[in-house]
Amino acid sequence: MAAPASRSALRALRSVPRPSQRAIRPIPRTCIPPRVRAFSVSVRRRDDASDLSEPGHDVRYTTDLYPELKRDSRFTELKQEHVDFFKKTLEDESAVIDGLSKDATDDLEPFNRDWMKKYRGHTKVVLKPKNVEEVSKVLKYCNDNMLAVVPQGGNSGLVGGSVPVFDEVVINLTRMNNIRSFDDVSGILVVDGGVIMENADNFLKEHGYVYPLDLGAKGSAQVGGNLAANAGGLRFLRYGSLHGNVLGIEAVLPDGTIMNDLSKLRKNNTGYDMKQLFIGGEGTIGIITGVSIQCPQRSKAVNVAYFGLESYEKVQKAFKEAKVQLGEILSAFELMDAESQKMVHSHTGNKRPIEGDHPFYCLIETSGSNGEHDNEKLETFLEHVMGEEIVADGVVAQDGTQMAELWRWREGITEAIGHHGGTYKYDLSIPIKDLYKVVEDTRERLESKQLIGEGKVAKAVIGFGHMGDGNVHLNIPVRQYDHEVEAAIEPWVYEWIQKKGGSISAEHGLGIAKAKYIGYQRDETMLKLMRQIKQLYDPKGIMMPYKYLEGVKEHTGAATS
Amino acid sequence: MAAPASRSALRALRSVPRPSQRAIRPIPRTCIPPRVRAFSVSVRRRDDASDLSEPGHDVRYTTDLYPELKRDSRFTELKQEHVDFFKKTLEDESAVIDGLSKDATDDLEPFNRDWMKKYRGHTKVVLKPKNVEEVSKVLKYCNDNMLAVVPQGGNSGLVGGSVPVFDEVVINLTRMNNIRSFDDVSGILVVDGGVIMENADNFLKEHGYVYPLDLGAKGSAQVGGNLAANAGGLRFLRYGSLHGNVLGIEAVLPDGTIMNDLSKLRKNNTGYDMKQLFIGGEGTIGIITGVSIQCPQRSKAVNVAYFGLESYEKVQKAFKEAKVQLGEILSAFELMDAESQKMVHSHTGNKRPIEGDHPFYCLIETSGSNGEHDNEKLETFLEHVMGEEIVADGVVAQDGTQMAELWRWREGITEAIGHHGGTYKYDLSIPIKDLYKVVEDTRERLESKQLIGEGKVAKAVIGFGHMGDGNVHLNIPVRQYDHEVEAAIEPWVYEWIQKKGGSISAEHGLGIAKAKYIGYQRDETMLKLMRQIKQLYDPKGIMMPYKYLEGVKEHTGAATS
Repeated sequence: MAAPASRSALRALRSVPRPSQRAIRPIPRTCIPPRVRAFSVSVRRRDDASDLSEPGHDVRYTTDLYPELKRDSRFTELKQEHVDFFKKTLEDESAVIDGLSKDATDDLEPFNRDWMKKYRGHTKVVLKPKNVEEVSKVLKYCNDNMLAVVPQGGNSGLVGGSVPVFDEVVINLTRMNNIRSFDDVSGILVVDGGVIMENADNFLKEHGYVYPLDLGAKGSAQVGGNLAANAGGLRFLRYGSLHGNVLGIEAVLPDGTIMNDLSKLRKNNTGYDMKQLFIGGEGTIGIITGVSIQCPQRSKAVNVAYFGLESYEKVQKAFKEAKVQLGEILSAFELMDAESQKMVHSHTGNKRPIEGDHPFYCLIETSGSNGEHDNEKLETFLEHVMGEEIVADGVVAQDGTQMAELWRWREGITEAIGHHGGTYKYDLSIPIKDLYKVVEDTRERLESKQLIGEGKVAKAVIGFGHMGDGNVHLNIPVRQYDHEVEAAIEPWVYEWIQKKGGSISAEHGLGIAKAKYIGYQRDETMLKLMRQIKQLYDPKGIMMPYKYLEGVKEHTGAATS
Repeated sequence: MAAPASRSALRALRSVPRPSQRAIRPIPRTCIPPRVRAFSVSVRRRDDASDLSEPGHDVRYTTDLYPELKRDSRFTELKQEHVDFFKKTLEDESAVIDGLSKDATDDLEPFNRDWMKKYRGHTKVVLKPKNVEEVSKVLKYCNDNMLAVVPQGGNSGLVGGSVPVFDEVVINLTRMNNIRSFDDVSGILVVDGGVIMENADNFLKEHGYVYPLDLGAKGSAQVGGNLAANAGGLRFLRYGSLHGNVLGIEAVLPDGTIMNDLSKLRKNNTGYDMKQLFIGGEGTIGIITGVSIQCPQRSKAVNVAYFGLESYEKVQKAFKEAKVQLGEILSAFELMDAESQKMVHSHTGNKRPIEGDHPFYCLIETSGSNGEHDNEKLETFLEHVMGEEIVADGVVAQDGTQMAELWRWREGITEAIGHHGGTYKYDLSIPIKDLYKVVEDTRERLESKQLIGEGKVAKAVIGFGHMGDGNVHLNIPVRQYDHEVEAAIEPWVYEWIQKKGGSISAEHGLGIAKAKYIGYQRDETMLKLMRQIKQLYDPKGIMMPYKYLEGVKEHTGAATS
C-alpha cells in the first residue's frame, strides 16, 4: 500500500486540498471495484481446491461423514422407466445427465459434490429443465413416483444443502437463465431462478442499478438459490434482507402446482405473503423458478477505511459513531481480530496497513451518490473517532487498488486460515454487545483444557465478520480434525449461543451441516409449526430429505459447518 | 408561503451563499417537523367527525351496509358464564367491558366503530389483557367455546378490519404497552404489540433512532397492528417493508399456543420464517403480542421541494433523476394531480406554492445526516431538472414551517375531498409507467357515461399518492353515493388493475372492504394456498370472520374502500 501507515496517513488526508480540487477515485457506477470481488471468489475457490486436489485426496461421501444416516426406504430407486420419462419430457439431449443407462460418473460429479468439496452424494441423474412447465412436470413425476429430489442452483452453498446425500434426483436450474423484465423507473427486475447473480448485476449495472445482494460466490450463485438460502452477504447492512427486497416469486410445489406470486409491485396487501416461506426454505417445500426483486440505484462513489482499536468496547463505539456520522452512506462495517490479521500477514507477507499491534481491526466502507460529500463525511468521522481516541490508528484508501488491498485484509482471512490441517467454523448471530465474547470464551475454554497453543492441536481461535449485522464467524484452525477439540466446542458453543439469544446459523442456513443443531435455536412449538408447513407443502417428504428440519440426532464426523 | 413563487424561487436558492454560511433549517433529529404530522392526524379525524356528527346522522351498522351478510351460526352467543370467565381470568376490573350483564353501549361504542365511522359492529364484550399469558388464556377459551374474535390495536385501519361485524369478542391490546428492550448499538427495539407507534418513535428519538414507519394515524396506531396490516406509509420509500425490518414476533395462535419467534438478530437462517405470515395476516391466524424491529438512525437534516410538471412522462423522468441524483437521501416522492391541488386550493384558500396551472405536481423530501450535503445535492438536482425542462416550476422550503406548508398540499387532499357528499376511494398499486393511466381512464369512462361535471353526480376524478412506491390513491368525490356511478367504476376498476398486474390493495389491506374483490388479485391456486394457511392455524375459523379471505361475493352498499 502506497499510503504511509500510522496516524500520519490520516493527517495527510486532512491536509489535502478541498474535495472539489482533489481527484476523486474514478469508480463510476460500481459499488466496489470489480477487482475486489473477483479476488475474493478466486481466493476461496483456490483455497479449497489446493487443499483437496492432492493425489489420493478425494472427497469423502457424505454418507461416510455421517455413517449413522440411512437411506429412507420409502423412496423409490431410480429405474430405466424414470429416466425415459425425464428424457421424453425435457426433450433436449443435454437436459438429462443419465448415470443409470451408462457410466456418467465424471459428468455427474460436479452435481454430486459441493464447491467446498466437503459433501458428496450418490445421484445417478441430473435434470436441467428449461422452463417452469418442465420443472412442474418432472417434479410432479418424482412426487407421484416417490423419487426424492434435491433442487440445485449454483451449488455454492456452505452447509451441504445443494448436493444429494444418497441417490436423490438433482433438478438443476442452470438452463433457466432468462432476464424476464426490468423497469428502469422503479428498479424492479424479474428473472428466472437460474440466472447467475453476477449476470443479473452486470445487466443492472448498464441501467445504473445494483443487485441488492453481494457474495464472494456471485459468479456461480443463482438468484433462486440466493432466495432459497436467504443469503446475507456484503450488502446486507445497506440494502437489508431479501425478505424485504423480494417482491414476488414463481415456485413449483412438489405436486407440480405452479405458484404464481410474481408480483412486480412494491406494495401488495392482498392475503398472506406466501413467498416468504420459500425465502430461507432451502428448497424443502418447492423450487423457486422466477424472482421479482426491487433493486436500488448503483452508488457512484465508494470509500474504504481500515482501523486499529484497543478494545471491543471501542469497536462498538466506532460502529455507533459510524452509523450516526456516515448515516445513509455506510455500506459495510467489518470486524477482524488481531489473530485474524496476524494470520493474513503471515500467509500473504503483505505489509500491514497500519503499524503496531491492536486487539481489533475494522474495515468501513461507504457508498454514496456524491464522492465529495462522502469524503467529507468520512473525514469528519475520522477526525472524531481519532480525536476521541475511539480508534487508535487508521488509513483510508486513495484509489480502487488500495480499496482492494484493504478489503483483502478482511476477505483474505478464509484463505489464510485454510492453509492448516482443518478448521472448525461457526457462522453465528449474537446481540452486538456479546458478539466477540464467544471468541474470547472459546479461546479460554480451549486454553483451560490445554488444547491450544504451541504443539497442541488447535492453533488459534479467530473471530471476524459482519459487525454491522451482528454476525461473527468463529474459526478454529487445527493441525488436524480432532475429537477432543470437537467435543470441547460442541455442543458447548451452541449452548452458549442459545443462552445469549443468538443464532447458530446467521446466513449460511441449515442444510445438512446444521440440521441436527436446530433444537438449540428453536423451541418445540416453533419446530412443530415449521413441521406443519413442511407437511402441508410436501406431504410425501420428497424434497431435500435428511436436511433442514430432518437432521440426524448425532454424527461422529468432523464439524464442517 | 413567504418564498416567492415561480422560477425565481429556484434562482433565489441558487444565488444564496454557500451552504456553510447559510442557515440550515434547525430540525435536529427529526425526520419531518412534528407540526406536519400533527396537522395530518387532526385533519383526517376532524374531516370525518364533522361529516358525521350532525344530529340524526349516526353510523350505520356494517350489517346494514352489507345486508347479505349473515351471522355464522356455528359461533356461540355470548353468555354470562363466558363473561364470568373473562373477568376472573383478567382480574383487573377495567380489563373487561361487559355489555351483557348491564347496558354498556357507550363504553363499547369506541370499540364497535372504526375511526372513519364507516363500520360498526354489535359486540357486547371487550377484553383488554395485559400480557401474553392473558391473551393466551382468553383466546384459548374463545376457541374452545366457539366464540368469534376480533383482535384490535389502535383501531386506525382503513378497511373495517379492526371492528366486529356481529357480536365477535374484541381482544384489545391497549394495555400491552411496554417497551421491552432497546439496543442502542444495533438499533433493535422490542416492544409489546400494543405500544402506540408515536410512543415507540418518541422513545427512539431520545436515542437518535427512528421507527421505520410513519403514518398519519401514528398517535393511535399500535405496533402490533402495524404488522398485522403490513402498513406502508410515508417512510416506505426510504426504509422499505416491514417484511424486511421486523426481526421477530411473539404471537398467540387461536388455540392459545404462544409462538415465541422474538429474535433480536438481524440474521437468523434457522428454518421457515413463520413470522412473515402474521405480517399482513390482518389478525386472521393469531394475535401479535410482541415485536422486535430494526430501527434506522434518525436523519438530522430534512428538505422539502414542490414542483409543477407538464406531463406524466416528465413526472417519471423527474422520479428517475431524483433516484440518481438524490440517491440515498431521497425519502419521499409524492404525486398530486391538478384536480387534487385545485381542490386543496379551493378548500383552504391558501396561496398556491407556484403560479400557473400544471397537470401534475410532485413533492420531494430528502432526509440525511448532513444538511449542507443534502442542500447541495438538492440544488444540483433542481438545476438539472429545471435546465432540462423536466420540471416546469418549483419551490424549496426554507424552514420547518414552509416544509409543513408544502406537505399540506399533499396531506390536505383527503380533507379537501372530504367536504363533499361522499367519495369513492381506491388504494392501488400499479407498475409506475401506468400509474396515472387508471385516473385518466376512470375520468374518461365517467365522462363517456355523462356522470361527471357540472350538475352531475361525480364532481371530479383525482389521483395522488406515493409515486416512489408505485402506489396511487384514486378518489372520486360525489355529491352523494350513487349506484350508477358505483356500477360504472366497479368491478371495471378491479378488472383494469388485474390486466395491468397491479394490486387492488396496496397498503390498506383487505379487511371487510376489499375481501370480496380478492379474486381480481389472486388466482385460485394462490387462494387455495392461503386458505390452507388459515385452516392450519385457525381450523375452527374463530378469528376475524367475514373478512380477509372470507369476503361475501357481492354487496349492494356504497363502496367505502
